[in-house]
Amino acid sequence: MNSLVQRFSQPLDIAHGKVDLSHGSGGRASAQLIEQIFVRHFRNPLLEQGNDNALFATQAGRMVISTDGHVISPLFFPGGDIGSLAVHGTLNDVAMAGATPLYLSAAFILEEGFPLADLDRIAASMAKAASDAGVVIATGDTKVVERGKGDGVFITTTGIGVVGEACNISGNRAAPGDKIIVSGSMGDHGVAIMASRENLQFDTEISSDSAALHRLIAELVATGCDIHCLRDPTRGGLATTLNELAQQSAVGMRINEAAIPVKPAVLAACELLGLDPLYIANEGKLICICASDDAEQLLSTLRQHPLGREAAIIGEVVADDHQFVQMQTRFGGSRVVDWLAGEQLPRIC
Amino acid sequence: MNSLVQRFSQPLDIAHGKVDLSHGSGGRASAQLIEQIFVRHFRNPLLEQGNDNALFATQAGRMVISTDGHVISPLFFPGGDIGSLAVHGTLNDVAMAGATPLYLSAAFILEEGFPLADLDRIAASMAKAASDAGVVIATGDTKVVERGKGDGVFITTTGIGVVGEACNISGNRAAPGDKIIVSGSMGDHGVAIMASRENLQFDTEISSDSAALHRLIAELVATGCDIHCLRDPTRGGLATTLNELAQQSAVGMRINEAAIPVKPAVLAACELLGLDPLYIANEGKLICICASDDAEQLLSTLRQHPLGREAAIIGEVVADDHQFVQMQTRFGGSRVVDWLAGEQLPRIC
Repeated sequence: MNSLVQRFSQPLDIAHGKVDLSHGSGGRASAQLIEQIFVRHFRNPLLEQGNDNALFATQAGRMVISTDGHVISPLFFPGGDIGSLAVHGTLNDVAMAGATPLYLSAAFILEEGFPLADLDRIAASMAKAASDAGVVIATGDTKVVERGKGDGVFITTTGIGVVGEACNISGNRAAPGDKIIVSGSMGDHGVAIMASRENLQFDTEISSDSAALHRLIAELVATGCDIHCLRDPTRGGLATTLNELAQQSAVGMRINEAAIPVKPAVLAACELLGLDPLYIANEGKLICICASDDAEQLLSTLRQHPLGREAAIIGEVVADDHQFVQMQTRFGGSRVVDWLAGEQLPRIC
Repeated sequence: MNSLVQRFSQPLDIAHGKVDLSHGSGGRASAQLIEQIFVRHFRNPLLEQGNDNALFATQAGRMVISTDGHVISPLFFPGGDIGSLAVHGTLNDVAMAGATPLYLSAAFILEEGFPLADLDRIAASMAKAASDAGVVIATGDTKVVERGKGDGVFITTTGIGVVGEACNISGNRAAPGDKIIVSGSMGDHGVAIMASRENLQFDTEISSDSAALHRLIAELVATGCDIHCLRDPTRGGLATTLNELAQQSAVGMRINEAAIPVKPAVLAACELLGLDPLYIANEGKLICICASDDAEQLLSTLRQHPLGREAAIIGEVVADDHQFVQMQTRFGGSRVVDWLAGEQLPRIC
């Protein structure tokens, strides 16, 4: 975020104005946009240092950093928008190390002609998501590209957080005998986006599950259980994420289709749209892998939290040189659940 | 960066292939792209943790974070490319707090159809710039947008670094009587980009000054002088950056046109293109503001470094309630040098 520019009293016409190239110039118009939209919504002492960087104190220990670009289309959808998603998505990637997220940076790439009213709404949503999560948007950047060289707004957020001493959570720690837990129903986010994109109406509205999971994770960590892996099944869905973990840990997995929570409305929409819920992105769910002895305690901790009420043990880790994820189907058969091949749902996050 | 996928032995056709939507799916094609381009070039232990985040140890003290989106056009230009620029730009913003940059994250937004050969070249350039600077690309992300919804590649980098105890460098510390130093010639980057865009030929090729300034800054800090402000005059150029600092510190500035280093070829190109070198972006220069007593020592330290050979004292800070930057012109007159208004050079970084 460039310096604050308090003397530009001339207000932006947020209701009717549009982004133009001068908003990316680094000059007066940039300063006005930053002050009257981003700083107004994000206001905090770090941002108000007014430098091109933000300075903060650290303790000795361990930190994590994670980054995600957000290019979701449409920008506004049931259950959220690109602003709240850009906060939740990165915050969750930080939290999956068992970390407490502290600071976010936000870099905006705006397309010429984008309505300032939409940008203002997105900034307000980011500010609320960050404030609700107790994280600070410490620094930022704004660029503008010509009409037809972008698509409204892209937001890249980077998060940093601190990890407690006891935590040793990593995708390479799944071991044969471990249990696989999911924190709730699969596919809500992806189906909500698809339905919104295709303008489909269902009896029950399907909302994105976009949510910040760090407090739920803090409760899992506080149990003292040795959590082996945590990962959020975003792009590529549960199936792809389990394959990633299987490969990283050099193990196989066996999951039970009947145990995987999927909302009836999501299942029905998937049938209509020809989608497989196992491959659909989630934005407020996690996969937790732990020793069998810890599984019940972690499951019960998940279920006591509003974001984990429908948590379920869906399978277990097995020794397998092929690193296959195999699923026992509802009909009693067994099939290999492979990585997502090709592209099922472009620009889902 | 999603997990490493070592088992995908099928090689990408980097020479002839193009980015398609499946490379952003989070599935097999994404993993292949990440492994065979990004991980191959950036390889380091943090990235190879293979999680959606990177974990590192920290000391007690102070850190800084900074982020920048890079949307420069053209992607390749004399003196660099979007990859080296994305490393230098963010690293410099971190260093302007007097910090030692340690880690970068990199988020790519790719347009469908972008040649893999160009992406590979850009990744190689980023890797070299990071390695030369002694910083690690610790984590990343890749998204793909449909043809016509992006422009080849946008790269958002976020950097973190540590700040020594003695440092207290901030844009609000300029005080009347302080000297204003620039580390070298103004306008090289912006003019190189414009010339490249317009396909202009000059007798002397003008190259971007894109460079990592953190080692030069470390030498300034090591003098023990009390550096008040450091800032790199990127978008908006020297004129806008001085106005930012004047406003942030609530002071005025007086600069001397004859003292501002501008290469003759840059000056000639500016006259041809109707540009003012004071408003043109630099990517390897800094402005240093310090007490008058420290100015000669800092100037001499700058001049001993290859990136500061043409450093010069260009003016001083004055008390001024209007926070004006005034310039004594070559012809003896005086004029107010205002913020950049409008957009002179879109997509310069």
